Amino acid sequence: MLVEPKYAGNIGAVARSMMNFDFNHLVLVNPCELNDECYNRAMHAHKILDTAQTHKNVHDATKNLDFLVATSSIDSLNDKHHLRNAVSIVDFVQKIAEVQGKIGLLFGREDFGLLNEEIAQCDMMIKIPTSKQYPSLNLSHAVNLILYSLYITQETSDKQRRIIGDVEDKKLHDYFACILDEINYPTHKKEKTKIMFRRLIGRAIPSTWEYHTLMGVLSRTLEKIKK
Amino acid sequence: MLVEPKYAGNIGAVARSMMNFDFNHLVLVNPCELNDECYNRAMHAHKILDTAQTHKNVHDATKNLDFLVATSSIDSLNDKHHLRNAVSIVDFVQKIAEVQGKIGLLFGREDFGLLNEEIAQCDMMIKIPTSKQYPSLNLSHAVNLILYSLYITQETSDKQRRIIGDVEDKKLHDYFACILDEINYPTHKKEKTKIMFRRLIGRAIPSTWEYHTLMGVLSRTLEKIKK
Repeated sequence: MLVEPKYAGNIGAVARSMMNFDFNHLVLVNPCELNDECYNRAMHAHKILDTAQTHKNVHDATKNLDFLVATSSIDSLNDKHHLRNAVSIVDFVQKIAEVQGKIGLLFGREDFGLLNEEIAQCDMMIKIPTSKQYPSLNLSHAVNLILYSLYITQETSDKQRRIIGDVEDKKLHDYFACILDEINYPTHKKEKTKIMFRRLIGRAIPSTWEYHTLMGVLSRTLEKIKK
Repeated sequence: MLVEPKYAGNIGAVARSMMNFDFNHLVLVNPCELNDECYNRAMHAHKILDTAQTHKNVHDATKNLDFLVATSSIDSLNDKHHLRNAVSIVDFVQKIAEVQGKIGLLFGREDFGLLNEEIAQCDMMIKIPTSKQYPSLNLSHAVNLILYSLYITQETSDKQRRIIGDVEDKKLHDYFACILDEINYPTHKKEKTKIMFRRLIGRAIPSTWEYHTLMGVLSRTLEKIKK
């Protein structure tokens, strides 16, 4: 998924890269016009451009997806910026191989990437390691590296862990939010702490059994607090 | 080293990619003109274009190099075509780490790659694994993948997220165990649930900040329950 790409050439280059690594579903959020340059750069991958879905915003574009991954070449300078606390590509490809369901990879704008509120919706954030002197990759280069990494890892992994569904996911995070409310957790820290929990769970990818066990602990804790 | 690149945009994109991964020495063999598009695509990497060496042929361009590596996304169809008998990127980055001296990476023309006589001069040939339906990568994408692979091999392990210490780890799991005790969690399930929590945390690998935030939530929860 390309979020507000500004240069048609990049979109074409991404389509080509997708076909090079057997990916088919391109989603565009509020893109520029797909002009001749776009089609020229796509080379043999016109079909990917022609079948791309277009949405007005990230929310609409992601509502049918089960697991969202944000990408960045800019790392958190500070450990406290948990919003941008990223896993490496190597960790990412291993974890994602275990996920079942529809996975969305979000790539941001050429100039300023993904917005914090877009990143906050994602279950995982990955960072591409790059030089400190010039960390910002071309958009299609970033896509190309991630798709390549997924492609070469695909063959090596066989066992898949099922990820929990949307309803279960919402319930888990609602329970966690309830606990924060009940323990009089400082209001100004609540949002950050909820995102921290989302990141932890996103990286851990609980199995169905782990999910139900964790929910058992949280619901018993809530009951006890409320007594 | 780009051998007879035809599209100036690709040369610029290669220069940017080189700077992204801390490579400096661009060599061009009989290139097209480095026009505005080339410089635009290079973004902050103009210096790499300005200091690029230009040669008329591969022989001249490679005479001061000690070890030559050819690249291709087209594999040998037949094992007997040893000329194009390639090693994987993974094998390449391991092997190249053992090489001393000046190493040259040769990338061929956008349309038909490297000639057999150019490949014959090389000490090693690497192949980028790609889809059978459309194996041909954009030139700058191919360069980007190889430079990235070299870059991450160089710096693996020094950018790992710090794992929380033994003392902190014990404290976290002690708190979790305390909560299970306080909420009258079924005794026969306790051991399995503690292991579940240990596995979740083990896969999530919390940062120091995440650890302290999580501990804050657990300790407040315990306080509240005990009241």
